[in-house]
This record gives sequence, structure tokens and C-alpha cells, in this order.
Amino acid sequence: MSQVEGRNPVLETLKRGGVRKLLVVEGSTGDPKVKEIVELAKRRGSPVEFVEKLVLDKMSETRRHQGVIALVEAPGYVALSSVVEKAGRTPCILILDGVEDPQNLGSILRTADAAGVDAVLIPKKESVGLTPTVLRVSMGGGAYVPVARENIYPAVKLLKDEDFKLVGVDTSGDHDFWEEDLSGAVAFVLGGEGEGISPTLLDKCDTVVRIPMHGHVSNLNVGVSAAVVLYERLRQQEAKKTQRRSPQ
Amino acid sequence: MSQVEGRNPVLETLKRGGVRKLLVVEGSTGDPKVKEIVELAKRRGSPVEFVEKLVLDKMSETRRHQGVIALVEAPGYVALSSVVEKAGRTPCILILDGVEDPQNLGSILRTADAAGVDAVLIPKKESVGLTPTVLRVSMGGGAYVPVARENIYPAVKLLKDEDFKLVGVDTSGDHDFWEEDLSGAVAFVLGGEGEGISPTLLDKCDTVVRIPMHGHVSNLNVGVSAAVVLYERLRQQEAKKTQRRSPQ
Repeated sequence: MSQVEGRNPVLETLKRGGVRKLLVVEGSTGDPKVKEIVELAKRRGSPVEFVEKLVLDKMSETRRHQGVIALVEAPGYVALSSVVEKAGRTPCILILDGVEDPQNLGSILRTADAAGVDAVLIPKKESVGLTPTVLRVSMGGGAYVPVARENIYPAVKLLKDEDFKLVGVDTSGDHDFWEEDLSGAVAFVLGGEGEGISPTLLDKCDTVVRIPMHGHVSNLNVGVSAAVVLYERLRQQEAKKTQRRSPQ
Repeated sequence: MSQVEGRNPVLETLKRGGVRKLLVVEGSTGDPKVKEIVELAKRRGSPVEFVEKLVLDKMSETRRHQGVIALVEAPGYVALSSVVEKAGRTPCILILDGVEDPQNLGSILRTADAAGVDAVLIPKKESVGLTPTVLRVSMGGGAYVPVARENIYPAVKLLKDEDFKLVGVDTSGDHDFWEEDLSGAVAFVLGGEGEGISPTLLDKCDTVVRIPMHGHVSNLNVGVSAAVVLYERLRQQEAKKTQRRSPQ
């Protein structure tokens, strides 16, 4: 069992279904959002239990439960090989090398869900896993996007064998991300908060792109970098479709 | 006076200059990063004071000082009119409608610096200002990007008078952001965490674009949305330059 905390994350999770139990602070249904949550839980057949605020305060792992906690099946991890097997023609994988901040992983899962990513790979070492804070920040995305937690080099070999283009996103890149064709089977490699992508992993990349920096700060937040390249990929795919529909 | 906390943010701030005093926990220069910070401060002529850890713990507003706090001139706010007056041919402004989370504002300032934004406008009401947490998360970006704190409707009128295209970024948008010409004088309007852009402000927009959502979560984090549209703008500008250089 895992838990999702906070009003918006709980609401998103209820929409998906699979909530085993909803815990609500008693006397809080005067709040329209809490009322909406309780009503949705009832429609979805999820049992609702009203408890003292103290109970949620004790249970809460994020300290931001806002009066509601949903108990859900722990999302668990998937095997990268099974994701690759089932993926469509132009799958997209995110490889996170050393993302330790739960805020960042949560943000990435939210964006990855929105951008239709097939799986996120987090290495076994020196990375945060699917903690309650990650699930909370992901606004439900953590429950949808398959997450694999595997050793990184065997995973990279698997992806190369399956003809993924490994695209490192790093300030050391020698061309801008929009100059690279990102529309096919792509695995983006992103580095963590401190060190960026490790040199050995950078070497394995088929190409390394940079996100241009026009100001004074030296790099972008990893969740922001992921979003920028993922949406450029979607833009390129859409542009290709449009070209096919109206050939010159 | 304002303060910047944490190793990377302090380092970025020292690179810029303007640090009035650097406070360091005594006995911590064995750490290479702290050593680098102290040496840079000395080269830049910023006074360094070694203090007990307890002093920084008490001063810290973010509870994440990591042994270093830099005292700096408070960045302060600018007048939007003066930014517009001095801006180049294709200025870019971000209007944030009700962003209350300091993590989000900090992230936006970091990205805004990287993407060459001319100014960020935060309304006087119901928005977070330039707090220490915001400055910390911005990784120094908050010290570079001009921030105006003004009433939103007079600001919108000013921008319209100056021929900015007001582009709302909202899930209610009727076309994808990459279909819109974003390469000229643009003011992006983004909504806060809870309610999105207010209906009255949405009405004032010249156009409203959406960021396509392919998954289950209903929207993106506001900092992520800002990054996605800002980098699409840069891509379009670059594409135009390339077209001019090699006409068909």
C-alpha cells in the first residue's frame, strides 16, 4: 500500500480509480474541494473514513495532507524490457542519472505523463524512488507513467539493441536540441541536480544536445529540461504528420 | 538587504558579484565546494566571516543553508514601463497571475534568466514576492531577471499600447502553442497553481494557446509550462534567422 496526500493529488488519483480507502478529516466537508473529493470517492465505490485531524497528521509523510489522504495500491516498478516490448513505433524513454530530489522526480513524472512518455528509468543507486512526496508532486502522474528501477548500463544496452537513439541533454552538448531529429524511438538521458550526466554514460549517448542558455545561470532544473525536450519531440512529430498530409 | 542560501545559489550569486558579506560555518572549508565559494568571495573582494553553525541555523529562512549564506543587496522591483522602454526589438514579458508557491516563482526566474526574458510581472495581490526561498530556488536567476510588482490591468494596457501580443497559456486554449507565431514582442500570461488564469484576464489575451496533454494529469506545473513556451519562442526566432540566411 502507498498513500497519496493533498487535495489536488487525491482528486487526480480518484479520477483514475484504484483508491482502496479515502481518509478525510471529520467536519471538513464544508470545504467545496473536500466535498467534491468525498462525492467522487463515493461514486467510484471507494470507502470513505472520517478521522481526527491528528490521525492524518501522524500518517502524513509530506506534512501537506490538506485534510485528505488516499490509500492506493503501491504503483511499483516495471521491467524496462516489458515496456520496450509493448511500446508503439516511436517510443520515448527518460533515463534519469542521479536525480535525488523528490520534487524533481515528481515534477518529471507529471510532465512525462502529459507528454506521453512510455517509461522513466531511475537507476538503483543514488536516486530517489517512488516516495509519497514524489507521488504527491506528480499530481497523479506517478501512478500512470511506468517507472523502471534498474541498473543503468544493462538498460542502455537493451535500448541500443532495440535501435533507440540515446540523446544526452547536457550543457556540454555541441548543438541545440531543436536541431536534432527527436521524432523517432528516443531515450533521453538527463543528469541529476549536482553533477549532471556521468562521463561514462555521456560517452554511451549517440548524440548530446544542449538547451541554449541566454542568461547568467549555468543550467536549468532537470524537470524543466525534461519538459523542454519532450515537447520539442511532440512538436516535431506533429510537424511530420502535417507534412505528410500536405506534401509539396 | 536580502540573503541567498545554499552552496550552488551562493556560488552563482558570487559569480555575478554584489555580495556584501559571505557567512560561512567555521571549520567547513575542508569541503571543496565551500572552499571554492570562499576563494571566489576573496577574489571578488566580498568580506568573509566565519560563524558558528547555530548562527546560520537561526538566520536561515529556507532551512537549507548548507553552511553558507550570502548577504546581498535586495534585488527590488522594477517599473514595467522602464523595462519596456529599454527593451530590444522583440521583447518578452511573463505575466504570472496568482503564482503563490515560492518554488514555482523561483523555478520560473531561473528559466526566465536562461531564456532571456526581459521582465517578469507579478501582481500585487495573491502572489508570492522575492522571498529568500524564491531567490534560493532561482539559483541566482532572481538577481538577474527584472521583476515588476504592479497591478495587472494597467500593466496589460501598457503592453497592448506597446503592441505586445498577449498570449495566454491555458488548458482552455484552442490551438497548440507551436502553431502560434511567438517570435515577436510577446507577453505570455500564465495562471497560478489553483485556479489558472482569471476569466477577466483570459478575455484580454490576444490569443490563448494550449500545451497538449497526452496523459491523465490535467495540467502542467506553471514553471514547466513557462519553460516549454519560452523555448518554443527561442526555437522560432532561431528558425527565422536561419531562413533569412538561406532563402529559397
